[in-house]
Amino acid sequence: MAPSVAVENLNPKVLKCEYAVRGEIVIHAQRLQQQLQTQPGSLPFDEILYCNIGNPQSLGQKPVTFFREVLALCDHPSLLEKEETKSLFSADAISRAKEILAAIPGRATGAYSHSQGIKGLRDAIAAGIASRDGFPANADDIFVTDGASPGVHMMMQLLLRDEKDGILCPIPQYPLYSASIALHGGTLVPYYLDEKTGWGLEISDLKKQLEDARSKGIDVRALVVINPGNPTGQDNQCDIVRFCKNEGLVLLADEVYQENIYVDDKKFNSFKKIARSIGYGEDDLPLVSFQSVSKGYYGECGKRGGYMEITGFSAPVREQVYKIASVNLCSNITGQILASLVMNPPKVGDESYAAYKAEKDGILQSLARRAKALEDAFNNLEGISCNKAEGAMYLFPQIHLPQKAIEAAKAANKAPDAFYALRLLESTGIVVVPGSGFGQVPGTWHIRCTILPQEEKIPAVITRFKAFHEAFMAEYRD
Amino acid sequence: MAPSVAVENLNPKVLKCEYAVRGEIVIHAQRLQQQLQTQPGSLPFDEILYCNIGNPQSLGQKPVTFFREVLALCDHPSLLEKEETKSLFSADAISRAKEILAAIPGRATGAYSHSQGIKGLRDAIAAGIASRDGFPANADDIFVTDGASPGVHMMMQLLLRDEKDGILCPIPQYPLYSASIALHGGTLVPYYLDEKTGWGLEISDLKKQLEDARSKGIDVRALVVINPGNPTGQDNQCDIVRFCKNEGLVLLADEVYQENIYVDDKKFNSFKKIARSIGYGEDDLPLVSFQSVSKGYYGECGKRGGYMEITGFSAPVREQVYKIASVNLCSNITGQILASLVMNPPKVGDESYAAYKAEKDGILQSLARRAKALEDAFNNLEGISCNKAEGAMYLFPQIHLPQKAIEAAKAANKAPDAFYALRLLESTGIVVVPGSGFGQVPGTWHIRCTILPQEEKIPAVITRFKAFHEAFMAEYRD
Repeated sequence: MAPSVAVENLNPKVLKCEYAVRGEIVIHAQRLQQQLQTQPGSLPFDEILYCNIGNPQSLGQKPVTFFREVLALCDHPSLLEKEETKSLFSADAISRAKEILAAIPGRATGAYSHSQGIKGLRDAIAAGIASRDGFPANADDIFVTDGASPGVHMMMQLLLRDEKDGILCPIPQYPLYSASIALHGGTLVPYYLDEKTGWGLEISDLKKQLEDARSKGIDVRALVVINPGNPTGQDNQCDIVRFCKNEGLVLLADEVYQENIYVDDKKFNSFKKIARSIGYGEDDLPLVSFQSVSKGYYGECGKRGGYMEITGFSAPVREQVYKIASVNLCSNITGQILASLVMNPPKVGDESYAAYKAEKDGILQSLARRAKALEDAFNNLEGISCNKAEGAMYLFPQIHLPQKAIEAAKAANKAPDAFYALRLLESTGIVVVPGSGFGQVPGTWHIRCTILPQEEKIPAVITRFKAFHEAFMAEYRD
Repeated sequence: MAPSVAVENLNPKVLKCEYAVRGEIVIHAQRLQQQLQTQPGSLPFDEILYCNIGNPQSLGQKPVTFFREVLALCDHPSLLEKEETKSLFSADAISRAKEILAAIPGRATGAYSHSQGIKGLRDAIAAGIASRDGFPANADDIFVTDGASPGVHMMMQLLLRDEKDGILCPIPQYPLYSASIALHGGTLVPYYLDEKTGWGLEISDLKKQLEDARSKGIDVRALVVINPGNPTGQDNQCDIVRFCKNEGLVLLADEVYQENIYVDDKKFNSFKKIARSIGYGEDDLPLVSFQSVSKGYYGECGKRGGYMEITGFSAPVREQVYKIASVNLCSNITGQILASLVMNPPKVGDESYAAYKAEKDGILQSLARRAKALEDAFNNLEGISCNKAEGAMYLFPQIHLPQKAIEAAKAANKAPDAFYALRLLESTGIVVVPGSGFGQVPGTWHIRCTILPQEEKIPAVITRFKAFHEAFMAEYRD
């Protein structure tokens, strides 16, 4: 009898799905890491440096103390009855934990919550959004999720009927979108960001790609925009909002990097704020905003907290979203609490404020310096050009590979950027993701590298990278 | 322009999916709960009692102290450096937290982990399984998940290509399975458990349903079994294992109730233990065991912890599972830690052992008494017959509804059991789930009711239920 489960009889959508940030290079890196443990000294480096994924705490970033104090108190509420607790925890962490516990029915941090998340925490999140945007937000519009990814999956599951349904996604894109679209059997409709204008988004290109997809019979359901990131200003955001309304698209706004802005002249404006500012209400535009505790200065990836704010969906459609959320019961309560905290951090006058502010500023200023140092280093190397990192946690330098390197890659049966990334890993222990995992203009090659190594390690990273790159170019220069 | 998102253009799989435990009755209950808050005294009861879902802590069950101590210390590790901590936490919680932090790369409880979960925690889980079963378990076979549900979804996503792929599921079943199969576009192939033999599982019925499905062109991929629950002994389990091997089915063993056994003559035997006991190895049987921190005496539903242990899958198939897990990055670290704890609770000699044992025994003995009290109460009522609750957290009494009640339900456009459950809710505030959400032999009507209300409330629950039922029967008696 044939094996009951074999690759040949699995769901082809699963087989088709690719997830570059945890793909071949990362699996190889994990193998090398094991080798370093079992045979120290057997490789030309002594540690693996994971620059493949935005995972700040894995590279030494410390969590914000206030957040962790509140989580510990909520995990073990009987601490609140002990005298010693007052000397171990800040007064505002204690009062915040009490507020949160009071908002949880039965103070039960170990109970399934409402499928959308604990109402009191959603109230706090909505208040945080309203204060950020200057427009009202409603707890009933909030679906608290285990990080942003499950929210994205839910939207894809809701919208995609078959491969004739498409989602407009930026290229380069975040692999979550291509993976989720593949898993749910839809079609990714690409639009290219313009590398020359710092990854700008041209409405004319959006329009062209939309029409092109429609001419092929694709029913384009939604537009994904990374904000901040791709839209390069408020005017551009207004144009995107109008485009979605006019074309009948759901706007899926990935706003998880809202706190990661490293230049003074930029400011985060949520798409909901922009839409309301130009007078668009619920009826004009179905809009979903994703936020996560994994990014920002908080970087609490492992806690799996986040939310999506859904506006402009009819009641019957929203019931379907509620149903999907219910099948997963609820997101984890620790992550729910954290989502409420990042949207309502300590305020001026709170005992923790000074320490919180110092931790936050320290992290963000260091990220800005690291981004600049890496960007400069890339731009100083032969055959590499790199846009400014104005936000998020990544650089996406273009590697102008010599023809000989491209041929060597072909001989090794690898994409040229994957060939480069693999050689980089094997020489230096630095893990980056080949640009092909994100999409790139055909014939161009990139790598994606996070800006997250600890600041004191950055000079060594640059030195290792430079030595590798120069040797690589010397080997393959045409 | 037509609305861009409307029920008519959503994924039909989403529309088809039903999830009874959070369905119409529960949404109605939430409305009544709001009414109780805004207009106290406006309903014939003063609280809503949620018996629809196995959510013990929402009904007052306290978490196990040791588990919460460890979680708090892991959330805020700087506590471990403080002198006061020694008086606030038990010594073994402190040492366990240190062990766990040492097993986490960089002690980073806020970092994404390996997609399968932190290796050191998987080692601990595997050790717990090995000690439970007396057969080896391997950390590489463990995928730590946010509760058991995501594991079930992953398996359905992997196995189901289209509606011609089927999964054998027990009826009555857990709605997670029907919901997940619907969402992933497969076909639920039912097999009926025998109410007369205490929900026994007959291999002959399995065989018949399998052949029937095959004759309709369904490719049956897997068998779902709830254990403990349906298989009524080791012989029955051996037969199931042989059946899966002979028929080329994946055995999906839902083993989340492994600690919930209330009768002395029953003992939990995992399907892996049974398979290995009769000499079946990896090559004989693809087997997935699901476990969760939500059930047992721990009842930590809101923490979303759990795992699946996968054996008997080929390496290329397992790579696909790894890929799906990677797209979700990782399960939440708090839940991962808790999964390692429930599989390795305090042992004789540990400082916490006595308190832990008293908490565990207190919870399980109380659950057994509550199950018995409710079962007796149901069996003492006219027209209700209820099997023994030997495990899990639920009773599934059959309500022999009078014809007049069935007609009244029809007139109200409701299934008779839904009609009954709605009337029960409106009269008493007790929330149960109509049997139709679980499947039942056509023409029979049931309700599902958890045994979880606090023990001191059980007499009042019984009194309210009895008064409602007697009035209902008086109204509709034929």
